[in-house]
Amino acid sequence: MRDYLSEIKSAGVKELPLLAHEIRERIIDTVSKNGGHLASNLGMVEATVALHRVFASPKDKLIFDVGHQAYAHKIITENERSVPFENLRKLGGTSGFTSPQESAHDIFFAGHSGTSISSAIGIAEANKLKGDDSYTIAIIGDGSFTNGMAYEALNNASAKGLKLIILVNDNEMSISQNVGGLAKYLSKIRVSRGYFRFKRGAKRIGFFPLLGKPFVKLFAWVKNKIRRALMGNTIFENLGLDYIGPVDGNNIKALINVLEEAKKRGGACVVHMKTQKGVGYLPSEREPSRYHGIGTFDIESGEAHKKMPQTFSSVAGEAVVGLAREDEKVCAITAAMADGTGLTPFANEFPERFYDVGIAEEHAVTFAGGLAKNGMKPIVALYSTFAQRSFDQALHDISLQNLPLTLLLDRCGVVEGDGYTHQGVFDYQLFSCVPNAKIYSPETYEELKNTISKSSSDGCLSVVRYPKGAEKTYTPAREMIYDGEHMLYYSSGIEAAKRVIVTYGRMAEVANEALKDLPSDTGIVKLVKIFPLDRSYLTGLLSGKELIYTLEEIYKNGCVGEKIASYLAGTQARVKIKAIDTFVPCGTLSELYEHLSLTPHDVVNEIISEKM
Amino acid sequence: MRDYLSEIKSAGVKELPLLAHEIRERIIDTVSKNGGHLASNLGMVEATVALHRVFASPKDKLIFDVGHQAYAHKIITENERSVPFENLRKLGGTSGFTSPQESAHDIFFAGHSGTSISSAIGIAEANKLKGDDSYTIAIIGDGSFTNGMAYEALNNASAKGLKLIILVNDNEMSISQNVGGLAKYLSKIRVSRGYFRFKRGAKRIGFFPLLGKPFVKLFAWVKNKIRRALMGNTIFENLGLDYIGPVDGNNIKALINVLEEAKKRGGACVVHMKTQKGVGYLPSEREPSRYHGIGTFDIESGEAHKKMPQTFSSVAGEAVVGLAREDEKVCAITAAMADGTGLTPFANEFPERFYDVGIAEEHAVTFAGGLAKNGMKPIVALYSTFAQRSFDQALHDISLQNLPLTLLLDRCGVVEGDGYTHQGVFDYQLFSCVPNAKIYSPETYEELKNTISKSSSDGCLSVVRYPKGAEKTYTPAREMIYDGEHMLYYSSGIEAAKRVIVTYGRMAEVANEALKDLPSDTGIVKLVKIFPLDRSYLTGLLSGKELIYTLEEIYKNGCVGEKIASYLAGTQARVKIKAIDTFVPCGTLSELYEHLSLTPHDVVNEIISEKM
Repeated sequence: MRDYLSEIKSAGVKELPLLAHEIRERIIDTVSKNGGHLASNLGMVEATVALHRVFASPKDKLIFDVGHQAYAHKIITENERSVPFENLRKLGGTSGFTSPQESAHDIFFAGHSGTSISSAIGIAEANKLKGDDSYTIAIIGDGSFTNGMAYEALNNASAKGLKLIILVNDNEMSISQNVGGLAKYLSKIRVSRGYFRFKRGAKRIGFFPLLGKPFVKLFAWVKNKIRRALMGNTIFENLGLDYIGPVDGNNIKALINVLEEAKKRGGACVVHMKTQKGVGYLPSEREPSRYHGIGTFDIESGEAHKKMPQTFSSVAGEAVVGLAREDEKVCAITAAMADGTGLTPFANEFPERFYDVGIAEEHAVTFAGGLAKNGMKPIVALYSTFAQRSFDQALHDISLQNLPLTLLLDRCGVVEGDGYTHQGVFDYQLFSCVPNAKIYSPETYEELKNTISKSSSDGCLSVVRYPKGAEKTYTPAREMIYDGEHMLYYSSGIEAAKRVIVTYGRMAEVANEALKDLPSDTGIVKLVKIFPLDRSYLTGLLSGKELIYTLEEIYKNGCVGEKIASYLAGTQARVKIKAIDTFVPCGTLSELYEHLSLTPHDVVNEIISEKM
Repeated sequence: MRDYLSEIKSAGVKELPLLAHEIRERIIDTVSKNGGHLASNLGMVEATVALHRVFASPKDKLIFDVGHQAYAHKIITENERSVPFENLRKLGGTSGFTSPQESAHDIFFAGHSGTSISSAIGIAEANKLKGDDSYTIAIIGDGSFTNGMAYEALNNASAKGLKLIILVNDNEMSISQNVGGLAKYLSKIRVSRGYFRFKRGAKRIGFFPLLGKPFVKLFAWVKNKIRRALMGNTIFENLGLDYIGPVDGNNIKALINVLEEAKKRGGACVVHMKTQKGVGYLPSEREPSRYHGIGTFDIESGEAHKKMPQTFSSVAGEAVVGLAREDEKVCAITAAMADGTGLTPFANEFPERFYDVGIAEEHAVTFAGGLAKNGMKPIVALYSTFAQRSFDQALHDISLQNLPLTLLLDRCGVVEGDGYTHQGVFDYQLFSCVPNAKIYSPETYEELKNTISKSSSDGCLSVVRYPKGAEKTYTPAREMIYDGEHMLYYSSGIEAAKRVIVTYGRMAEVANEALKDLPSDTGIVKLVKIFPLDRSYLTGLLSGKELIYTLEEIYKNGCVGEKIASYLAGTQARVKIKAIDTFVPCGTLSELYEHLSLTPHDVVNEIISEKM
């Protein structure tokens, strides 16, 4: 295996672009086969080479915000990793994000935006307390700067002369086009200042070899003063941080010089670099958004292997468009997930009622509260995992205000590929402790459309949760009866069943598959509305059974099964709760179902092994 | 009742300071009797008068961030309120925060920091969609600007020419002294610019009466350009917002002029005013921090009526100091709650290991993660309600990283006085769905000290939750046995009891009181560690009972009782879960216990009424 880390240290600076080229080819090759984040990783290759040249990882700590742009870092440090890069996003393979399980070079599990500066400050403060003089470097994209947490950290970074460098990777877009005041501001800096010519400036000083160091320092000081007077302080400088930039982040030599300069500054220093997202691969240079996160594709043509079929996301997006056509009060809000949540058609048809607020889930929900307070009908679409940041706002700024909000949660349940930090398995617990909230978990497109429509007239916080990907159609193993409200029963007469599987969403198909190998007196109750549950109805239905087996793709503590079991205290019905009781790693959906014992085979075995 | 609102509209500008004086006297008088927020409200009197002079509330919408500084607003609009200001913080009385239940002049229930700009943008956007030309004004302190959500909103405020004014109330401190880069920056603006002399500037323009309007406009434009060239853009301008200031916010006339000017600007405009916290009452001018939130006090002397006795907060603070003396790796972190969480002695003794990060709960927890990653032993102290904003960080940046963190949650359970937005009744649900977390809920100082000590070697996320105020000592109604781990049993031989109350924390005293009026075969199981529960132990202990009555000061869905009930499915034990299933209003503790049926009397009645 190539030892890029040693090569980067020992090579001449002029040789580094060739190494970068090779690393880039490996990224393109692996992502084309395994899927993953392409465009942002291609943009970061040169910067990552420069970082490893200037800093001594893992003594110096490189902390990648979100961690989705660390592929070059993983290739460079491959020799000191437990898994080869080729196994990207496979179960037991290389995570698509930074992972301390893989290597000491990965400092934090990451995945959510805006955390890098906070953890970097923590590490740098600890270094200071311990008298350790190594550096901590947070590498953070301009997209993450739309997130409030990054700002909370910036506000705390200046405090005490930390050996901290914040490398701002400015590629003018987060997942898609960047939004908001800061994005415009960064672009203004770029235009007004041009690139930082550190090298050239140093050379010029070199023209006066006889003047000695004090004069050179004075010269630099005066130059800096003049620069500031002419251009004003940057936001970073206003917050008490040193600032160098902007520098071309795809120019290894320039960036090395600037990083060396940043090391010499006394305290926390922001290095502002401009990179080109998707650079070095023509299709992703042309359409960086499309190649942000992508499935497997053909390298020659850039064409995705799987044509994206209809998905829960696209169906949800269509449903929202449908509502907006009927009612001009309907607004749609997302937090840098317009494509992912299927809202792009809405944005195109109703641009004046569409709001992408950046990676700002807290603001998104409270902003929706303001819209609702003033008579609009807001619909917020987020990935389940990112909605974890909006609990407080859903509680106080929606539910307490008695305001209506439909919260569409995409990527619910187990999520393939992305690993620990992207699972949608905590939303039920969070939103079921918001007073007056309702939670729906449809299994089919039809149910999804119905619940979105229904939720828009609930007049409260209504959460509609659905998985990534496409609906699965199948033949029910038992006769199905729909009770008109929120449940479907399989089995001819659920009343006669001795054992019942209670489930919802995508797990209903697993239960149905299991049913084929279970005694005929086993039935299924499928829920669509999972909160609040119809307690007396469920208790009446289930209290006489021998066994209730609840089956969910959600974290176990506080799950639906726990609630149902709590209803059945004092009855003869035994309850076995099947859910997730661990952090969920990366892998394909079927690998993860195996890993979590959520297959039909597991269900059959567990039910059979219970005494009947 | 005085109609200040009409008087403010009709009076001459010169008469307004007298009105302000009267309003200030009423604030001092009422807070001295009922307790509440004093210093920030005194600072806001003139600004609130100016706002009601310039804007037509409630058509124009005044949104107070946090809402604790709206007392003058409440007095001014008292005639259009359902409750008089004198009932401040009483059950059914005037909330200490803005409350739409009381008046159309209160737009949002508030309480948590940094939400005002988000909701104001939502309202302003809805106005734009509806073609309504009224104004929305967010009034937000510099303390709230340490919160990331305020920044997320600022980043979205410039978008589209909204009729939005953001009035920054800069009093140089949030709850206590302000922290971070922005606070220093605002003070730099104040020093470098002096106060904005709008009136004087206008007069000078008036010296050239013959030059006409176009010249006046040109003059203003040139002046503005020169000002910007000399001073550079403010952060607000960098984010694309108009900026006027700083202006003396305790000068009604000056502020009226500036607000009138802000109305004329095309889009969102930041007005930066400087106010003096605590102004107009000598004791609070001298010690604004002490008078931020205060109990009843004597107006003449400024002395608090209740001398603060030892509290859970002070005991927790002492315990952390004790740990820090023994181990130099112990660090303490809070988010603008150093006094409230009892950490001030720690800050004094170990300033280099103490971090107040501002109102930044997200950053606080991830920053602690960085410290822990680099070998420190961080302890984060937050109020339970504010910790709601750090779930995602506790999940991913602590637990997933396998890092140790003691999270001290102060103000758990029902919180008197502050109302809906300050209750500590959701933390159990949130943190019990963090894999590998532990949650302790001590009742006594002794248990508190033990659990803090224990948690520091748990090696995981350990949450220690305790209420506001002091421990209550009492005589157990039954013989008590301690089992050495995490439970205490009352009743001589819990095995013989037919009915058992399962409870923890402060509710144990209520249960004990109830026991006096319950049959002698009723016992109590008191938990200290409430997550994870010892399932097999509890099941063995409780499954043979006739009735299990679980008693908690926590939200009902997902509560401890629900978990215990779920263990008892398939057994004969009936379970009655007593917890909170509504938002909790303001009131004294005993009023709230009555309101929520959490008194010994309620417990007795409910147990007796169950069939035995």
